[in-house]
Amino acid sequence: MPTQPMESGRARPTIKAVAAVAGVSTAAVSQAFNNKGRLSEATRRRILDAAMDLGWSPSAPAAALRSARTRTLALVVRRPTDVLGADPHFSELITGIEGELAPRGYGLLLHLVTDVDEESTLYERLAAEGRVDGAVLTDARTDDPRPALLTRLGLPAVMLGAPDPDAAVPGVGLGHQGAGVGEVVDHLLGLGHRRIAYVAGPAELQHTRLRRRRFEDGLRAAGHRPFAVLHTDFSEGAAIAATEALLAAADPPTAIVYANDSMAVCGIGTAQRSGLRVPADVSVVGYDNLPIGRWLHPRLTTVDQQVQQVGAAAARLLLARCGEDAGDARLDGRPRLVARDSTGPAPH
Amino acid sequence: MPTQPMESGRARPTIKAVAAVAGVSTAAVSQAFNNKGRLSEATRRRILDAAMDLGWSPSAPAAALRSARTRTLALVVRRPTDVLGADPHFSELITGIEGELAPRGYGLLLHLVTDVDEESTLYERLAAEGRVDGAVLTDARTDDPRPALLTRLGLPAVMLGAPDPDAAVPGVGLGHQGAGVGEVVDHLLGLGHRRIAYVAGPAELQHTRLRRRRFEDGLRAAGHRPFAVLHTDFSEGAAIAATEALLAAADPPTAIVYANDSMAVCGIGTAQRSGLRVPADVSVVGYDNLPIGRWLHPRLTTVDQQVQQVGAAAARLLLARCGEDAGDARLDGRPRLVARDSTGPAPH
Repeated sequence: MPTQPMESGRARPTIKAVAAVAGVSTAAVSQAFNNKGRLSEATRRRILDAAMDLGWSPSAPAAALRSARTRTLALVVRRPTDVLGADPHFSELITGIEGELAPRGYGLLLHLVTDVDEESTLYERLAAEGRVDGAVLTDARTDDPRPALLTRLGLPAVMLGAPDPDAAVPGVGLGHQGAGVGEVVDHLLGLGHRRIAYVAGPAELQHTRLRRRRFEDGLRAAGHRPFAVLHTDFSEGAAIAATEALLAAADPPTAIVYANDSMAVCGIGTAQRSGLRVPADVSVVGYDNLPIGRWLHPRLTTVDQQVQQVGAAAARLLLARCGEDAGDARLDGRPRLVARDSTGPAPH
Repeated sequence: MPTQPMESGRARPTIKAVAAVAGVSTAAVSQAFNNKGRLSEATRRRILDAAMDLGWSPSAPAAALRSARTRTLALVVRRPTDVLGADPHFSELITGIEGELAPRGYGLLLHLVTDVDEESTLYERLAAEGRVDGAVLTDARTDDPRPALLTRLGLPAVMLGAPDPDAAVPGVGLGHQGAGVGEVVDHLLGLGHRRIAYVAGPAELQHTRLRRRRFEDGLRAAGHRPFAVLHTDFSEGAAIAATEALLAAADPPTAIVYANDSMAVCGIGTAQRSGLRVPADVSVVGYDNLPIGRWLHPRLTTVDQQVQQVGAAAARLLLARCGEDAGDARLDGRPRLVARDSTGPAPH
């Protein structure tokens, strides 16, 4: 790890060390930082990276400038770009965050990464270059390496998901995470549904497993079992394929619960195109309570997890950790069923 | 203008000038930049702003650090936050931009502003603090002050909209901007529609006026006139209100064209809820070709203006202007009608 020198508390790294790591002269190092000389951008980049890795900075003013407020917060999204485009969840989240940032002149630095390693490397750079004041973390996972990393980097952060104010990186989200799914199950059982399928997200995400367990527990408590649980990558194609597979069953489900509204909209369209009526033939439930659910006919039954409010609360808490007077970051609320027109009595 | 000292080429501003403007001692100024002393954040901010406005920087390394590559591009969006959340257009655009930025380790700095003055002030700060390498401009308007400003700030930029490679801030977009609307009008006339309404965006936007004119010209060329043209702020509420007003007419339109897909989805839902069939009773057309149009039933007839591809091309051109090897920024294409199931023969 290039960052060992920082961790092991050795003497402050020298310009000689930076030059050695970058394979250049010390003169080249100061040229890189003074933006003088005839260095190629590649060489310059290599030198700046070496300095960053070693934790070396050329002067107090430069260090001070790096440590100055950037009025920028980072949001790193670990999603395929096509899903980002297709899933309004993220524009809802960004809207909630921006609603707090914009009035304070803060900006949101959005980065897309393919995996958690790339995400970690990015935080190392953003911290070393002083590009952001803090970070909003999404998609908490088991054995998540990010809280320890950001603590080591001294970068304030909050984690979207289960509320956990005492964690090194405090969690921001609605309490009773599974509660919404529990209400969905009760709602469908109350309508007489017994063959209920669940179209879930990626298995490695905490909220996927949490909601799936809550779905299965809710049915089991009533003496039933899931018709099926299908995992997806949240993409349109996966949602359509899952829906078609379920509806093609000999004795198909009378209700399908989707892990987000976008997939539920795909599910309604797929069912309607196959000649089924929603909800007369099959009931459909989403999750997120995005605006689109209100636009559709039938209006989408979903779970309101207050994406915008959670984003806003996360922004307020992070702003407070960055030294801003950001108001109350508490969220009083829990995911709640929003029963609309896409669910109805089970067909006989 | 606080930036006059830079423009009029006077002697480099001094720390004394910064102290005078901020109303503090020169010691406080260096404390602010060295991040030392007991300055309040407000005072510190005032000093940094004064230094920024005067173009004063404490030292060569600090200046060099500011001029170093940030690997960050700015996207400033002039929209109410609720519209940002509701309209997938922006996540499509951001997806197209991120698709080019992510592989190069670049990030997108997203700022929401309420008006073009706030947007201009923001560019002044981002340039002075060296927060970004360049900017993608959206919503071109007549007498747009931004190209001159960004040129003066020396900040590379591109403008989304009509292609204009020779402008100080080159325009990136599909050619034949109005062509898509022209094809929509021909498509509807060919289906026998004569009472055709247009639900437009805000009147001050160039593309709003351009498409409206194309809509009206297309009808006039065939010897017809618009049933009505209603302007909106792109919001869900405005789309629903416009649709209800049109359908409440004594002899309502048989086809409604919307300025974007989100409003068209609201329009379909509103028509269906009022008991009308789409397209049997009323045809609906959107604009943008967002993924949601494929999910719905009926699938949405719309205009493909390749939002993602335009965003990607804008990112490539801007990256090239920032000195990156970013590949070809040309767009071969034009807005095209995508005829799906939400349009059909005019009812008799």
